[in-house]
Amino acid sequence: MTKKFALLIIDMINDFNFPNGEKLAAQTKKIVPSILALKTYCRSNDIPVIYVNDHYNLWKADIELLIDHVQNDISAPIIQQMKPERDDYFLIKPKHSGFYGTALNTLLHEFNTDAVIVTGVAGNICVFFTANDAYMREFDVYVPSDGTASESPNFNEYALNMMETVLKADVRPASQLISLLKEQE
Amino acid sequence: MTKKFALLIIDMINDFNFPNGEKLAAQTKKIVPSILALKTYCRSNDIPVIYVNDHYNLWKADIELLIDHVQNDISAPIIQQMKPERDDYFLIKPKHSGFYGTALNTLLHEFNTDAVIVTGVAGNICVFFTANDAYMREFDVYVPSDGTASESPNFNEYALNMMETVLKADVRPASQLISLLKEQE
Amino acid sequence: MTKKFALLIIDMINDFNFPNGEKLAAQTKKIVPSILALKTYCRSNDIPVIYVNDHYNLWKADIELLIDHVQNDISAPIIQQMKPERDDYFLIKPKHSGFYGTALNTLLHEFNTDAVIVTGVAGNICVFFTANDAYMREFDVYVPSDGTASESPNFNEYALNMMETVLKADVRPASQLISLLKEQE
Amino acid sequence: MTKKFALLIIDMINDFNFPNGEKLAAQTKKIVPSILALKTYCRSNDIPVIYVNDHYNLWKADIELLIDHVQNDISAPIIQQMKPERDDYFLIKPKHSGFYGTALNTLLHEFNTDAVIVTGVAGNICVFFTANDAYMREFDVYVPSDGTASESPNFNEYALNMMETVLKADVRPASQLISLLKEQE
Repeated sequence: MTKKFALLIIDMINDFNFPNGEKLAAQTKKIVPSILALKTYCRSNDIPVIYVNDHYNLWKADIELLIDHVQNDISAPIIQQMKPERDDYFLIKPKHSGFYGTALNTLLHEFNTDAVIVTGVAGNICVFFTANDAYMREFDVYVPSDGTASESPNFNEYALNMMETVLKADVRPASQLISLLKEQE
Repeated sequence: MTKKFALLIIDMINDFNFPNGEKLAAQTKKIVPSILALKTYCRSNDIPVIYVNDHYNLWKADIELLIDHVQNDISAPIIQQMKPERDDYFLIKPKHSGFYGTALNTLLHEFNTDAVIVTGVAGNICVFFTANDAYMREFDVYVPSDGTASESPNFNEYALNMMETVLKADVRPASQLISLLKEQE
Repeated sequence: MTKKFALLIIDMINDFNFPNGEKLAAQTKKIVPSILALKTYCRSNDIPVIYVNDHYNLWKADIELLIDHVQNDISAPIIQQMKPERDDYFLIKPKHSGFYGTALNTLLHEFNTDAVIVTGVAGNICVFFTANDAYMREFDVYVPSDGTASESPNFNEYALNMMETVLKADVRPASQLISLLKEQE
Repeated sequence: MTKKFALLIIDMINDFNFPNGEKLAAQTKKIVPSILALKTYCRSNDIPVIYVNDHYNLWKADIELLIDHVQNDISAPIIQQMKPERDDYFLIKPKHSGFYGTALNTLLHEFNTDAVIVTGVAGNICVFFTANDAYMREFDVYVPSDGTASESPNFNEYALNMMETVLKADVRPASQLISLLKEQE
């Protein structure tokens, strides 16, 4: 039986306006191509693309408003590439985990999702806690090794390692994950 | 110590496009003035006004889009009066209860809310389940007797009765509730 | 494909020590045979039997302790018939709904449960809120019409009606539900 | 105003029967005295002591049964010192976090808890995820630096570091935390 996937993109609409935000932005730029490759594949193969993003105290899932609010010199190059299409799903989250205080679990069940691909930032915080909440809710977890970034490569490595061992996550690179998705069609 | 309130307005941005929807719309018209009176009082007294509304499969808290989608001959007169101001909070809910799969609990904690005033429709379904979830989360529950409607007055009466006895809800009419709010200032 | 069921028994280990408790106990006695018939069928057909019960401020899922605590002249005849076997599941719940603050959802997923049969008391309170939470979590809901009791038959009738229409619950009597379970073997 | 604390003891009733379990047990022995010092202080100062523990597929919060099940040559010395008193709270958890599928949040609210002290194992898994869930639920988080253990000291150090920076946790040693608790009496 084919496994049903969903692609989660965490906090990529980001102002990077916090301690070490510039460092994180520098790391984040490197993962944009992998996430976009995954997104392109998913969009043309009926795999839902779900942004789950901080609300920056706007408390509204109004994408234009949010982009206005978070765009700055550091974030603009990332946001311009990463911004959602009109038909991507876009949920706001009040806390670290994409599942806490959001409709994510219900939305995933609506698609009969078996497995989530978790991408975005920060790899050792919001991605990590989202992955754990996905695991606690019995989803298979995929975290492409080049699809998440943390403020230092070491932190990201450690988080990937934890997700692989503790959450049994598949952490192959995005290109190999796309091959896997193609095989199971 | 002053009790901190929040006003919840449930599913008033509604298409009434379901069995007995016209009946519910007829009952709903009658409660609009009470809800508006409460809303006016709350807005001028720093009591947060929080809409929690079905997403009609749009899965987006984009108010204009949603209003476009649900407006029709039956709903338009209600929506025109009830539509949120730019600075009201507006959350979408995926299921009956306003707490399930939403940031409502977090938002209420952000305001240090002690008590919720639950208004809207249907009194015996979404209002009822929201009130129960508020009670399970230890909020004091107020349900103005003329601030909720169900498809039949009997059903609404029964639900109010249940909320009063089981959830210890205060069910006085909106005007008396406003007096109570004034007293505690 | 065969649907996987689980039988929930709500608050049948009860002290009936609250307003109208005697009335509820009188109604509860009448449903014991139906619940026992369902339980017997489920136990011999690998359908999990899960008690979900108030903790009476003991906060412990220690069955003997709990039974000691709640047994009295009114409750003893019911408890003696309804008490769990050593290998039935037994969860305590802190609030009305069997899902709130409990491992019920996880346990049901462990059995790949598609549908829950909700029985017990009170039909218009804890059974009702558990059924609604099951529905919000995408389980099919079965509530045998002679398997729940409320303090008045009217209240129980109304709750069954609500569960049938709002939660799309199947409300046939226990004997017919057992026939349905047999057919799908 | 005095802050209300609760002490959480995570997974100390443990069989250590998993990859690197012996390594974790060796680290765990070292933290027993700190946890016991905290527990003694809390018990004599009306600070609730709450064990939250894996259920080892027994799905029952029956302490004797659980201890029988997990006691072995490696775990016995730890369990003998760490086992709960009759009046400590004891909750089972189905997954990593002490909040997921448990009544912990409700129990903490019952005590009007402002701050949780999280102790136990593994520092970089269940303790970490419990601390994060506490933070998402707006509790102040204290994680005594000598009150949690992971399979390697590095992992534990990293987790403490993350909790301090991301969750704003206070990570002073147990003895200094006890001094702080004394001061605020």
